[in-house]
Amino acid sequence: MIRHAEPADYARVIALVDEWWGGRAMAAMLPKLFFVHFRETSFVAEDDGRLAGFLCGFRSQTFADEAYVHFVGVDPAARASGVGRALYERFFEAVRPRSFVRAVTSPVNDASVGFHRALGFEVERVDEDYDGQGQARVLLVKHLDRG
Amino acid sequence: MIRHAEPADYARVIALVDEWWGGRAMAAMLPKLFFVHFRETSFVAEDDGRLAGFLCGFRSQTFADEAYVHFVGVDPAARASGVGRALYERFFEAVRPRSFVRAVTSPVNDASVGFHRALGFEVERVDEDYDGQGQARVLLVKHLDRG
Repeated sequence: MIRHAEPADYARVIALVDEWWGGRAMAAMLPKLFFVHFRETSFVAEDDGRLAGFLCGFRSQTFADEAYVHFVGVDPAARASGVGRALYERFFEAVRPRSFVRAVTSPVNDASVGFHRALGFEVERVDEDYDGQGQARVLLVKHLDRG
Repeated sequence: MIRHAEPADYARVIALVDEWWGGRAMAAMLPKLFFVHFRETSFVAEDDGRLAGFLCGFRSQTFADEAYVHFVGVDPAARASGVGRALYERFFEAVRPRSFVRAVTSPVNDASVGFHRALGFEVERVDEDYDGQGQARVLLVKHLDRG
């Protein structure tokens, strides 16, 4: 079941993110504000009440035709089951009629790049210092009108 | 001089934040997205072309009458000179007619709590685990209509 994120979801998400990312230190990059101020475009997936995945995104306030996904995570035990795709579908619905969805991911995260390509994202470029010196990111974009 | 933040400002801001916060590891909490997607409500202060301060905020997409400040930093050499206040004044202008501005800060950061009080923020409460277990935050709110 997928529903909008609530502030009360934050504690259990943040307790799991580092583990879900294979031990990488991710928690500092996910402040609670997404679960408070971007609830219309942030979602959690539950399976029998257990957290199976989440997505945090927002409508760009600079670009009227764009939306951005900041974080998407799926329980490693639930991967390849369609949870990630279902979360993104809910996000795409929520941000329409906007046409462009952007996201960034780390180049070391091949699974993430592959997942986004399967959803119709294209790689725009790789920026070696996108999120600060040495913090490389793959810049991804999906055109919603192209299906 | 205060102007809207641009993506090109990010590299020099992110190179300074840990130092401006007295060595605390802050950079991971400030992804580039604020300099891309929230430019209308994010600002940099420059003094002779040198970065003197910055503020990153946005309009809440959950609460139509609220705005939120995620990060505000001032060069330690420029503190108490009014830069922080001037950045906040630009933000307040940008988000009107919204009435409430929220921010959170760390309880160990007495200077930040004092600064916000001087600007008219009130402390709502302290949440010991706001941004994850052990990540305590002081929750602040300012009512713009009360001056």
